[in-house]
Amino acid sequence: MADPQLAGDLVRDLDESALLARIFPRLTVLGSALLGPGDDAAVVAAPDGRVVVSTDTQTQDADFRLVWPNGYRSTGEDVGWKAAAQNLSDINAMGAVSTAMVVSLTLPPETGTAWVEGLADGLVAAIRGLGADQCTVAGGDLGRGRELSVTVTVLGSLEGRAPVLRSGARPGDTVAVAGRLGAAAAGLALLERGPAYGELSAELRDAVGRQCRPLPPLAAGPAAARAGAHALMDLSDGLLRDGDRLARASGVVLDLDPAALAPYASRLAPVAQALGEDPLPWVLGGGEDHGLLAAFPAGTPLPEGFAAIGSVVPAAGGPGGVALGGRPVPASGWDHFAL
Amino acid sequence: MADPQLAGDLVRDLDESALLARIFPRLTVLGSALLGPGDDAAVVAAPDGRVVVSTDTQTQDADFRLVWPNGYRSTGEDVGWKAAAQNLSDINAMGAVSTAMVVSLTLPPETGTAWVEGLADGLVAAIRGLGADQCTVAGGDLGRGRELSVTVTVLGSLEGRAPVLRSGARPGDTVAVAGRLGAAAAGLALLERGPAYGELSAELRDAVGRQCRPLPPLAAGPAAARAGAHALMDLSDGLLRDGDRLARASGVVLDLDPAALAPYASRLAPVAQALGEDPLPWVLGGGEDHGLLAAFPAGTPLPEGFAAIGSVVPAAGGPGGVALGGRPVPASGWDHFAL
Repeated sequence: MADPQLAGDLVRDLDESALLARIFPRLTVLGSALLGPGDDAAVVAAPDGRVVVSTDTQTQDADFRLVWPNGYRSTGEDVGWKAAAQNLSDINAMGAVSTAMVVSLTLPPETGTAWVEGLADGLVAAIRGLGADQCTVAGGDLGRGRELSVTVTVLGSLEGRAPVLRSGARPGDTVAVAGRLGAAAAGLALLERGPAYGELSAELRDAVGRQCRPLPPLAAGPAAARAGAHALMDLSDGLLRDGDRLARASGVVLDLDPAALAPYASRLAPVAQALGEDPLPWVLGGGEDHGLLAAFPAGTPLPEGFAAIGSVVPAAGGPGGVALGGRPVPASGWDHFAL
Repeated sequence: MADPQLAGDLVRDLDESALLARIFPRLTVLGSALLGPGDDAAVVAAPDGRVVVSTDTQTQDADFRLVWPNGYRSTGEDVGWKAAAQNLSDINAMGAVSTAMVVSLTLPPETGTAWVEGLADGLVAAIRGLGADQCTVAGGDLGRGRELSVTVTVLGSLEGRAPVLRSGARPGDTVAVAGRLGAAAAGLALLERGPAYGELSAELRDAVGRQCRPLPPLAAGPAAARAGAHALMDLSDGLLRDGDRLARASGVVLDLDPAALAPYASRLAPVAQALGEDPLPWVLGGGEDHGLLAAFPAGTPLPEGFAAIGSVVPAAGGPGGVALGGRPVPASGWDHFAL
């Protein structure tokens, strides 16, 4: 298979205007932009007089690999989807809806333009596929570098509601999650130490897809806000690590119920069997699923997509943290620097 | 002189939380953030129900050098200042005022943390030094990479006005600029082929500073909008190239007056003499000054900071472009890919 990064003409064969002319037409999606790409800046509607904003960079080899150890080659669509999904998730985690994104691409000159077009398609596919119907690609920037990187900044609207912070969990609250737990980590395990991608079953290829194209539950954030969630957070670095952050921000302990987490591990059994590994560490420590972690007042009917996994208890004088079946556990998960 | 990039402890010695704890306290500036760093996203005021947004990435070796040919070492403050200034300029070029920025840093593990702290200081120094009094650093992201890069996304408020686009210039308008022309290019020439930095006079060191720490005239954009400017644009890629873009977007020709441009070249005489070069190409083709190019209705008293440099004439059936003393000139200037 030819390297798809090198297919067709290359970034270095086009000047910036010509490359933009290839990309812009692919980014036409409905949304909230009052002025789209092409001027010095874009203008986006902010109907309630506030705008939610988050930014995140995906860098080759640090955040994704162009060629994985099992031979899978990241498509432009994969990288675009994931960059969009991660940032849409941050807006979701405030209880807001995404209204627009701007995208800054840094491209090695030897990158294939078809691959870059795929990246643009992946951004749009994520916006559409994840249901971010109000979100448009409002603008962006292109530059050169030795490493490929994609920075997405997403804007969102709170639709008149208060943002749901990490710091609002209170003893007695129900701890709940929306979306998957451990699916992205299981996919990463296949990419890093699984059989050759070409030999994987359709089921295992789908599992790889959960690492490359995560599925944040974008209806769940606003639904949690409307249901009165006390606290809300994106699950990007793993349940234990992110749970620890929410717990410390709130000054409480999240006591998770092992029985409630077991089904998440069972769901990963095919990958676990293929690799001969235990799926529970993926559920507890695996990042990049981009589900939501929430604390709801006790007795609140959980919005669609949420499942209870524990309860909030007092921190008993400590800084707060996570417990599993009543026993404190150390935070662990992905750290960008200390690996 | 020890490499300031390597001074003190290094990025790889700290985990992400510890590094953020070093950076966040340096970013405390007044502004329009309703919710600042620390949650999944920030919340920024958008008082007129719209938000202006622009994003731009600065990448090591493509957009700046850590060590220049003349021996000058970019400080963290330089890189932070320039990243902020470039993006503040894009908001200025819409006739808007900046309200907040979010910053995504990609850092090689061997980067000195003191250098990164300097970068944070440079962002704040630019916000304060350039008079962006309503702008705050609302949030950001840290990640690893082999190359150092900084992506700044700035939000702005139009304060109830319409955005001033590139496309509104009309025959008869006065062409005017605010800010410097060619100063950043003169500084770049010194960095690339000048005498050793340590041997430069104070005047020439100041000239180098115009490349490393550009001075966008942030009061001029909103002033141009209030004065009724028909078109407005950031001068980032050089007067001829950016003028060509504004002219084509408007379907007109910008006829520039050589006599009006001569003083900009004269001002660069000390650098030109030191290098034995002609300063006019810097004025016409040099990028990164981040002044403004504007078209005002004929007879409009120019707002403070603007100087007339020509007039808008009909495109005469062509796509539009730039003329110099009545003679058409080709667009030229910095292109990120076709060098």
